[in-house]
Amino acid sequence: MLIVGERINASRKLVNAAVCQRDVEHIKKEAVSQSDAGADFIDVNVGTFVNNEGEMLEWVINVVQGAVDKPLCLDSPNPDVLIRGLKLCKNTPMINSISGEPGRYEKIVPLVKEFDTNIVVLCIGEQGMPSSVEERVNYGSVLIDRLVKDNVAVDKIYVDPLIIPLGTDNKQGAYVLETLRVFKAKYPGIHFICGLSNISYGLPNRWLINQVFLVSAMAAGLDGAILDPTDKKMMANLYVANAILGNDEYCMNYISAHREGKLGIEK
Amino acid sequence: MLIVGERINASRKLVNAAVCQRDVEHIKKEAVSQSDAGADFIDVNVGTFVNNEGEMLEWVINVVQGAVDKPLCLDSPNPDVLIRGLKLCKNTPMINSISGEPGRYEKIVPLVKEFDTNIVVLCIGEQGMPSSVEERVNYGSVLIDRLVKDNVAVDKIYVDPLIIPLGTDNKQGAYVLETLRVFKAKYPGIHFICGLSNISYGLPNRWLINQVFLVSAMAAGLDGAILDPTDKKMMANLYVANAILGNDEYCMNYISAHREGKLGIEK
Repeated sequence: MLIVGERINASRKLVNAAVCQRDVEHIKKEAVSQSDAGADFIDVNVGTFVNNEGEMLEWVINVVQGAVDKPLCLDSPNPDVLIRGLKLCKNTPMINSISGEPGRYEKIVPLVKEFDTNIVVLCIGEQGMPSSVEERVNYGSVLIDRLVKDNVAVDKIYVDPLIIPLGTDNKQGAYVLETLRVFKAKYPGIHFICGLSNISYGLPNRWLINQVFLVSAMAAGLDGAILDPTDKKMMANLYVANAILGNDEYCMNYISAHREGKLGIEK
Repeated sequence: MLIVGERINASRKLVNAAVCQRDVEHIKKEAVSQSDAGADFIDVNVGTFVNNEGEMLEWVINVVQGAVDKPLCLDSPNPDVLIRGLKLCKNTPMINSISGEPGRYEKIVPLVKEFDTNIVVLCIGEQGMPSSVEERVNYGSVLIDRLVKDNVAVDKIYVDPLIIPLGTDNKQGAYVLETLRVFKAKYPGIHFICGLSNISYGLPNRWLINQVFLVSAMAAGLDGAILDPTDKKMMANLYVANAILGNDEYCMNYISAHREGKLGIEK
């Protein structure tokens, strides 16, 4: 299970302030705590700085890479910003993301190839957001087929099935699980990733819904998530799901996490 | 999701004492609390009383049926005991269970037919307990095929994939999920049921593992579970999983359970 730490996102108030004020210590702390908690990649998103996103991204990347030796997930739809970030990355990063929106593929895929990055594929078509399983599969397949034709290896592709709140349509959870199963069968070796919290928008106890959604999606094939790895309860569910799915030999990762107090749980 | 309340089991100390002492109030309370908490069936198991199991079962059934109007799950491998119970049941019960062990099928299936009961099929063969997916599917299929040939409707059959502790073999969780998927595709309309707690035997935080296992198995097709419905955290996971799997229109069951304080959760 690939964990992308989501905390360094300038849409969060304290991160926004830290970036504005060039508060190195705050960003460093966010990077170290996520790395220590088990993040495989550190997401960096400074999209709220519309006029100087590139400059802000360069600063954040340098700070994060000065603090931890983890690859980054560059979270921007803007190719000019992405290229500034890519030039600084020490480890092979992930680009988040391409979609079927006009022009986005053409501008971003050359960067994927030049920098040999991993790439997140959003199941969004020219027509916009998906609703059904079929739309997700169609929108995603167009992009995946094109990537493969452009010589991007399937195992560098992370499909994001696109999460729509259960509160607006109670079939959306089931659609996501089915979408994962269809893509898994259609493109062996492909990966998946998504954020979790959209699913629970507008419902009570969002943390619980997000946890149960993570477990359900892992059971259906999800092998990556953008989440807060310092959320110990979420991580407890993730460790246990890994064990239940047969991905934790002798349950040692789970038992170690328990012994090290990483689960943060009490009944 | 079919919930079978597991609490009235004489292997539990207080229930054992209550049955011994003919403590009507204690057993009534166990029946009412499970019914109120959402049990669809009430399991009754007095198998610890080897010498007078039939007599004890009759007493328990009368007490439970005097307290709640829920069907029972008669939990015994002994056909002589089962028939005494079946004669008292007011609502169509479930028999738990048949298996491939020599002689068990022949003695119990006539009762299934005579009393038109639901029947739990354990994936145990003549050779004993299963380990792999293949053994589970083979052992279960032999019994299901025989039941169908004997004119038992597929939707009266509840397959128990048999849960073996993760601590003894870390692939056992994945095997169960795969077993569910195989049976679901092979016998459309069939149901599943299992206890949860074996999966976590010997591991820390058993309650957490049981919860995550329930959610994973529901995502793979589990539509019944033998559990303690008065365990609010377990039920919270069940309500949310139902919503995520698209089985809760407008998420109203979940939202109602939240409003009525049935989830018993705090972050």
